[in-house]
Amino acid sequence: MSSYRPIGPVVGIVGAGQLARMSQPPAIALGVELRVLAGAPDESAARVIVDTRIGDYRDLDDLREFAQGCDAITFDHEHVPTEHIRALAKSGHSVHPGADALVHAQDKAVMRERLTAIGVPCPAWARVSSAADVAGFADEHGWPVVLKAVRGGYDGRGVWVCADAAEAEEAFASGVELMAEAFVPFERELAVLVARSPHGQGVSYPVVETVQQDGICVEVLAPAPGLDQEDAAQAQRIGLKIADELGVTGLLAVELFQTARGLVVNELAMRPHNSGHWTIEGARTSQFEQHLRAVLDLPLGSPTMTAQAVVMANLLGGDDPDLFKRYEHVLAHDPGIKVHFYGKQVRPGRKIGHVTALGSNLDEVRARARHAAVYLTTGEYT
Amino acid sequence: MSSYRPIGPVVGIVGAGQLARMSQPPAIALGVELRVLAGAPDESAARVIVDTRIGDYRDLDDLREFAQGCDAITFDHEHVPTEHIRALAKSGHSVHPGADALVHAQDKAVMRERLTAIGVPCPAWARVSSAADVAGFADEHGWPVVLKAVRGGYDGRGVWVCADAAEAEEAFASGVELMAEAFVPFERELAVLVARSPHGQGVSYPVVETVQQDGICVEVLAPAPGLDQEDAAQAQRIGLKIADELGVTGLLAVELFQTARGLVVNELAMRPHNSGHWTIEGARTSQFEQHLRAVLDLPLGSPTMTAQAVVMANLLGGDDPDLFKRYEHVLAHDPGIKVHFYGKQVRPGRKIGHVTALGSNLDEVRARARHAAVYLTTGEYT
Repeated sequence: MSSYRPIGPVVGIVGAGQLARMSQPPAIALGVELRVLAGAPDESAARVIVDTRIGDYRDLDDLREFAQGCDAITFDHEHVPTEHIRALAKSGHSVHPGADALVHAQDKAVMRERLTAIGVPCPAWARVSSAADVAGFADEHGWPVVLKAVRGGYDGRGVWVCADAAEAEEAFASGVELMAEAFVPFERELAVLVARSPHGQGVSYPVVETVQQDGICVEVLAPAPGLDQEDAAQAQRIGLKIADELGVTGLLAVELFQTARGLVVNELAMRPHNSGHWTIEGARTSQFEQHLRAVLDLPLGSPTMTAQAVVMANLLGGDDPDLFKRYEHVLAHDPGIKVHFYGKQVRPGRKIGHVTALGSNLDEVRARARHAAVYLTTGEYT
Repeated sequence: MSSYRPIGPVVGIVGAGQLARMSQPPAIALGVELRVLAGAPDESAARVIVDTRIGDYRDLDDLREFAQGCDAITFDHEHVPTEHIRALAKSGHSVHPGADALVHAQDKAVMRERLTAIGVPCPAWARVSSAADVAGFADEHGWPVVLKAVRGGYDGRGVWVCADAAEAEEAFASGVELMAEAFVPFERELAVLVARSPHGQGVSYPVVETVQQDGICVEVLAPAPGLDQEDAAQAQRIGLKIADELGVTGLLAVELFQTARGLVVNELAMRPHNSGHWTIEGARTSQFEQHLRAVLDLPLGSPTMTAQAVVMANLLGGDDPDLFKRYEHVLAHDPGIKVHFYGKQVRPGRKIGHVTALGSNLDEVRARARHAAVYLTTGEYT
């Protein structure tokens, strides 16, 4: 709207997916005016944010126009070219995270190099450019070898677990730049979410367990059940250390493997993250509010939990697009369940929303979240 | 936006003030698409709701156009003419609350007649059309007499506390239709918020104490401190009974006087209410989510509190419009404080936002809320 006159600070979010969408509730409360750069007017966040601009995040001119008048710029995803982010900062825009930090969430090889250099536990890894390189890596670390696209993978895409050189050859057929990692025999996956502000304040949320199916996170348990205090503290130290060493501004999500030999870092994301959706109701300050506070260099909010046990379950689209007819049952069955839809058309396997349950007993809370998620997406009564 | 294709149900809210604005966060989560009828594009809710239509809520044609395609229509205020609401319902629109219920929140004389008829405790009252009528009323019930505008008063406006017939004469000079009520010597003011859905489900939130200054609510304490269980239960019964007898659909806020002789109903509102803003963080289901669920006839959510003590303090505009420079202190001083701005320009005395604090000790929580509210609005350190 050309007549739009902001009253509060303006935060521009490049990308208009569900993360930008879920930033709007805390922005409304904080009096922060959101602007999003969407690819199309019916994207998830564009449906709920008035100041939506249409443009291409790969086009520097579009980014420059979008940035005019924003007090801070941040991102819904990692796909904005690093050099464009650098160019925006050079023009005087306040961009969070900055290019030098964000590159570690964009380029897995850069990330591994840096984490190794600062002493953060990682799987054995190497840059590879052929199946022969992979075989050489396997000579030292054994098969299977995990090949990962250096840039652009997510939700299990861009990852190949190779049993032998022939399978590695197939992965190279994708044509993307790859790196190799030793397969980590983990007990479970954990995640820690921290926030760091430009003036250097840091906070950490409780460590959570993330439950994956086919490379996609289906459930998050907060706090991670049975995690011993020393491991929890170490995970938080790792998160805060990475944020500090890399100069992260905004949120940092660190995905971890818990193994018999200790914690190992899997992936990084520098934005609100699926493993933190539970914080909307489950923490005094949601990750979305925290990210806005951090990128505006406002003091950070309390990450304290609002219940003893919180479980988030993702809603993955099924065959039947009409969720609304199953909505009534779920709300009637459990007056405490919280359902979040992302305003997306249902497609099989697509993340279209999530549910959150809170309470004092993890098993009960988990059963409630699972019941709601399974019933909403499939109509099956578990 | 003409290209806007809704995915979820559409709720149209007539009026675009802060109540409509604060309905957007739960609507985003529920996948409910909000549409607002605003008087101007920079109103509080119009700033955060994409599908904003500009029109006049007193014009039936504007209302009819607005209602097209809405699954339910509801209100940000009580000022839509009752006959227009009736006309919309007659055309097949799902309007909540309906005209027969809402008239009791629009017309104080109709409200008093009905509550008296169903046995709900009210102050002594009478329709009056002259100072002589008031003097007659005072002969029976004593001075002072409270004169109220039958329609249109709020936040202390449209109320005259008259010590004698001469003061009553002055009130009649306003030219509006008045009614008389006996002055109630109350100990404190309470409020109870209930929701009722079209299929008849009802829930009640805990009873709160509302603290007023100059007829404007400045603080809400949840639950009302020291309220005995029988009084609390009676207040909830009164709320649910009124909702049921009047056929309210959506929220009903009942303002009550606590007196030496028991509870007495002061005012009704049929929408989210200032006395319920604490529920955003303080209850599992906020009043704004509850109202949307009720008007869509979805099952109602849990009204359980998320902390033992919750205090909401209103932010009333002061002389200095720049709140943001004081924002940092408040957030840094108390990482658990929740600040809500309404996207309004600051004007002295105008409600521009509120703050909420939660915890286990009411006195501490109240001091935190008050510190934040006073500092934000005046810069004074209490």
